[in-house]
Amino acid sequence: MAIKESQTDVLIIGAGPSGFMCATWLARCGIPFRIIDKRSTEVFAGQADGLQCRSLEIFKSFSEKCFDFATLDQGWKIANHMIEMCFWSPDENGQLVRNSRVADTIPGISRFTQSVIHQGNIEKWFEESIDNFSDGKVKVERPLLPVSLQINEDAEPNTHAVDVLVKKLCNDAARPEQYGKVANGLFRAFDGDQEQFYKDITKDNEDDYELIHAKYVVGSDGAHSWVRKQLGIDMEGEQTDFVWGVLDMVPITNFPDIRSRCAIHSKDSGSVMVIPRENDLVRFYIQLKEVERDPNTLTKEFSGTVEERRSSKGRIDRSKITPESILKQAQEIFKPYSLEMTDLSWYTGYQIGQRVSPRFASSNRVFISGDACHTHSPKAGQGMNVSMQDTYNLGFKLALVCKGLAKQDILSTYESERLKVARDLIAFDHKLSRLFSGKPMIPNSDVMDGVNLDEFHSVYLEGNKFASGTIVDYEDSLLVSKKGASKPDEEGRVYSALASKVPIGRRLYSSSMIAQSDGLPVHIADRAASDGRFRVLIFTGDVKKNPGNIQVLYDFQELIDSNDFFSKKYTPVNAFSNSVFDIITVHASNRHDVEIEDFPAFTHELDYKRRCDYWSLYSGVGETYHEGDVDIYSTYGIDKKKGAIVVLRPDSHVALVSEFSVAGLNEVNDYFDKFMIPQTKNVLPPKDPQADDTKRFVLPKLAV
Amino acid sequence: MAIKESQTDVLIIGAGPSGFMCATWLARCGIPFRIIDKRSTEVFAGQADGLQCRSLEIFKSFSEKCFDFATLDQGWKIANHMIEMCFWSPDENGQLVRNSRVADTIPGISRFTQSVIHQGNIEKWFEESIDNFSDGKVKVERPLLPVSLQINEDAEPNTHAVDVLVKKLCNDAARPEQYGKVANGLFRAFDGDQEQFYKDITKDNEDDYELIHAKYVVGSDGAHSWVRKQLGIDMEGEQTDFVWGVLDMVPITNFPDIRSRCAIHSKDSGSVMVIPRENDLVRFYIQLKEVERDPNTLTKEFSGTVEERRSSKGRIDRSKITPESILKQAQEIFKPYSLEMTDLSWYTGYQIGQRVSPRFASSNRVFISGDACHTHSPKAGQGMNVSMQDTYNLGFKLALVCKGLAKQDILSTYESERLKVARDLIAFDHKLSRLFSGKPMIPNSDVMDGVNLDEFHSVYLEGNKFASGTIVDYEDSLLVSKKGASKPDEEGRVYSALASKVPIGRRLYSSSMIAQSDGLPVHIADRAASDGRFRVLIFTGDVKKNPGNIQVLYDFQELIDSNDFFSKKYTPVNAFSNSVFDIITVHASNRHDVEIEDFPAFTHELDYKRRCDYWSLYSGVGETYHEGDVDIYSTYGIDKKKGAIVVLRPDSHVALVSEFSVAGLNEVNDYFDKFMIPQTKNVLPPKDPQADDTKRFVLPKLAV
Repeated sequence: MAIKESQTDVLIIGAGPSGFMCATWLARCGIPFRIIDKRSTEVFAGQADGLQCRSLEIFKSFSEKCFDFATLDQGWKIANHMIEMCFWSPDENGQLVRNSRVADTIPGISRFTQSVIHQGNIEKWFEESIDNFSDGKVKVERPLLPVSLQINEDAEPNTHAVDVLVKKLCNDAARPEQYGKVANGLFRAFDGDQEQFYKDITKDNEDDYELIHAKYVVGSDGAHSWVRKQLGIDMEGEQTDFVWGVLDMVPITNFPDIRSRCAIHSKDSGSVMVIPRENDLVRFYIQLKEVERDPNTLTKEFSGTVEERRSSKGRIDRSKITPESILKQAQEIFKPYSLEMTDLSWYTGYQIGQRVSPRFASSNRVFISGDACHTHSPKAGQGMNVSMQDTYNLGFKLALVCKGLAKQDILSTYESERLKVARDLIAFDHKLSRLFSGKPMIPNSDVMDGVNLDEFHSVYLEGNKFASGTIVDYEDSLLVSKKGASKPDEEGRVYSALASKVPIGRRLYSSSMIAQSDGLPVHIADRAASDGRFRVLIFTGDVKKNPGNIQVLYDFQELIDSNDFFSKKYTPVNAFSNSVFDIITVHASNRHDVEIEDFPAFTHELDYKRRCDYWSLYSGVGETYHEGDVDIYSTYGIDKKKGAIVVLRPDSHVALVSEFSVAGLNEVNDYFDKFMIPQTKNVLPPKDPQADDTKRFVLPKLAV
Repeated sequence: MAIKESQTDVLIIGAGPSGFMCATWLARCGIPFRIIDKRSTEVFAGQADGLQCRSLEIFKSFSEKCFDFATLDQGWKIANHMIEMCFWSPDENGQLVRNSRVADTIPGISRFTQSVIHQGNIEKWFEESIDNFSDGKVKVERPLLPVSLQINEDAEPNTHAVDVLVKKLCNDAARPEQYGKVANGLFRAFDGDQEQFYKDITKDNEDDYELIHAKYVVGSDGAHSWVRKQLGIDMEGEQTDFVWGVLDMVPITNFPDIRSRCAIHSKDSGSVMVIPRENDLVRFYIQLKEVERDPNTLTKEFSGTVEERRSSKGRIDRSKITPESILKQAQEIFKPYSLEMTDLSWYTGYQIGQRVSPRFASSNRVFISGDACHTHSPKAGQGMNVSMQDTYNLGFKLALVCKGLAKQDILSTYESERLKVARDLIAFDHKLSRLFSGKPMIPNSDVMDGVNLDEFHSVYLEGNKFASGTIVDYEDSLLVSKKGASKPDEEGRVYSALASKVPIGRRLYSSSMIAQSDGLPVHIADRAASDGRFRVLIFTGDVKKNPGNIQVLYDFQELIDSNDFFSKKYTPVNAFSNSVFDIITVHASNRHDVEIEDFPAFTHELDYKRRCDYWSLYSGVGETYHEGDVDIYSTYGIDKKKGAIVVLRPDSHVALVSEFSVAGLNEVNDYFDKFMIPQTKNVLPPKDPQADDTKRFVLPKLAV
């Protein structure tokens, strides 16, 4: 009997947050894919807990109104919203005092604030979302171990060019070791766990194997990534001597700020980070002063990379890291405040290191993401977030390519866009970790050689903006056009003068507008959900005061109706006209001064049943009945007479800003001409007029 | 073999929104109960769709942060929010024109706006919530038909005094007739369907029967209530000649306000109400001009009450009510605008009538709710809402009594409180329906004898406040103390001078406060969730400026610690100290000017593991980082020096306002003394110190 063979568009290896985010995109866009994990469900792998603003924005974008299951937006409901950050340090007498308090999330950068919840919940909502988006077709397959990977370099674009051999494990092999009785992450944090899986390979049974032919492979398989090793990529970076412990428990304490995020520098006993969580839990990151090391382990069983080996002075004796030993150190740091522990739910220890992969992809066919590309200290709550954002970047590109809508070339922007983020992250973490691990300088005392806490605060605040994930900025590329934009400002942002507050390359900051049809205030981010479509936002200006602007819209209608223009050329024949490009018109007149019928047909398109799309025409300026005034033109720096056009990628990053004119719309056309594939041959089957397709704004599935 | 017998605390008959709301309360509070329905799941019974503000508030109150399933707050996410109401009527030339536009929900009365969603969704979320709250123990049992009901009048309070014999039906018997191919409500609307169920009774099999001994029975079994008939209660009221049709479909039209709520009076063709719904559906209520009647049916198969028979001139020939005939009439009314139909999803017809039951209960043992108590026209979207609010009133009282916490006497407040609401509703609907069904008067024309549209508008606007469900006002009773309050103002509200904007007897309007522990802005309604507890809100005033106020709090501590005072006396021994009375302290100082430890222990109580309750102390005044300023003292009209105490019932209606003083707290004690039962004998089993009871603020289950 031969080994079973099968095909799929995308094979995702690793079902953590990064793999799940990729799977969510593919399921939402109707792409055939599989997601496998080498562990059985019985082990919970790793415990991240921070949700940054941008991750919450992304979760919301997959949680459209029409979905009535418990989607990812549950995160915002259930997570603990962290509001305030308190800095504690020794006063002139060495006494621990509250030094300052600031907003934990910089006000005004997002609709959301940094929040904290157990990774297990997030993975549960991902699984539910994927299940629902794929109509129950896709579930994580586990325990399934990848055994070999081969790329056919000569294959045509978008063919099944990657062969991955996988093996079904028995559940016992897929259950990694644990140290101690309470759930903890010690094994994972120090060893990785590759070897135990592969020792199973010898007992062979052909029935357990399957050869998967995939168009693309995504390796979201963690810090010890098997996929990365197959690509022959080594991580670059270093490790420090600082050892930290982590405790998740309900504290009993008279420390007044235990429900705020706190950075505590003690005089002589090290530092603590306090992260208040859901259900009265608090996470503590605690600097450990004394941890025994066992130099023998270095050569005996060390499974890390060459760099890891080189930078490590000797292995930590992990059996010496216990909840009690971590707590003891924390009690020293908290003095004179008391600290006791109840309801311990998890603990771990780690050595601070920062490593990044120099490449994120191979042949535009195999990609790595998340911990497979970057590892660092957990204190800024970045790991899970940047990992999810990696595949939030990759997923929509894979969907466009797999559907045959866009050229495979766009996939190369994944590495160029995300490698820069990873490097920035590593640099930030490097700086912060060292400042946080050092002894504090005490002003007006004889201890003047330690960490300057003012510097620590300012690095922290600056880092908070970065950590929010909202200022990620993608460079000029096939998918971002910064031509003609301003020089970078002090924060590196570039703008078009036409939309002087919309940094090109960054995600569009969300602001409210008013639906022309029913007066509902709508956040533009909610109208620009993650459904795989590009958005063309047409800001017409005030058409009441400038009747010429209406004429421009009627000129647009001619272009939009033309078979040579992006809107028709790149949309499959028979598909809903807005299934690839979602054109949203936002005028600057009072909603009561204009009627829908004043605007040309493309602003309220009829479908094949002559049902009207009432959700593409908005007033951007005016008073709402229940939510105050809106003025999206001011928020975006768009002139109410001149208007502008803003193109968003499916991930809501600003791709292009152009003039509100025929020339400007032609610029939009040029942008799409570079990477989209004409769809004249892609004819969908005729529609059933009886069909109930009320959830109809999904990217259509194409006949291949 | 004898008939099976069983016991339960509460038997709910009828699994519609009213029965489900009762079940939700009981499940949330851990009361043993059952809910039965005579229909098999295959039939969807009735299609209400409007969710008023108060219903959305109640849904939110059952959707606490800690619940990670898809709770009732999905309604607010998925429903179509109706924002604007447009009035259309003939102009001087008889042409249909937009007369005016107003906010559909009066701004400022609630956090929510009136919304519309299919009843099926709501019932699904109810079932999920009940399943989750009861840990999977309670599900709707169907098809189960009640056969006989007997109350033992001599039984002791809170014993199993009601015997209900029920019969398991086969699924065929439980599937009512339908007319026509498209789902519709014609059968239900005109006939009721009792007879077909009971004709099955003759084919008897003892195994199909069960005798349920219940402490209390709730009949939420619809307009043709079997329970009401057992109690010998006849509805009172009348029926008109006006016949209306209902269509749920996606319209194809050039009418500009089709996505707003509209009341359209045509010159000669009758009226239409437009209700835009989820997924592009629109509901139309259409006045039918010509409907054939069949006088023979009146005597032959009419199953209604005597009143129904008397008021009816002759039965409508329902086979003549088709989607096409309803649409045809709508097209006449919409002229000169076009109106066509696609995606028809439901239709029905009804005759306007208003009927109310003169009694809602018998012997404080059997209660009726919802359509069993009041029926009326559907156009104000009241039916489902008032029906749910009936049992939202009843459910917490049943829970308190079943737990042995409160005397059975409190159950008599159900009828006194809800009968008044039903009568107000009937009066409102009577007035509105007649104005809406009449021909309009046309200003400055010769048609001056019709309905004055200005009167219609003002009745509508006045009615909107009532319809929101937020101004329901319960009179002075065992559970509401209006003694010493002001005379009623122009809207009937009474106040204490101590909280001059908190009407006693109405639900507390929600406003934000800031958690002392972590700075999170919290809506007081979210802190006062529907978990069965009473709330004692202690507004201390500004303790920084008035240090004497802190002393008052320390005096409170002594009372609270006393075994003779309500907080200990009526809380079971060993239960969490706040499991019956939830004392929330709201000061008026800047949060950064005070520390938790400045306040006495009851404001941040330790539990048996010495875990601190950080969620009972708030600042009511100040600046938040992300949501602007809050000032709950101004919102409630409470003096920042004097303070006040406000007691909320478990349904968030204001029960009492008293002075912030020892005398004031003693008034609170007097309030509870009237109806609570001392708990000195109710000892809970000792707690397991290893227990994970993070969701611990549930009313404890008592040893009986």
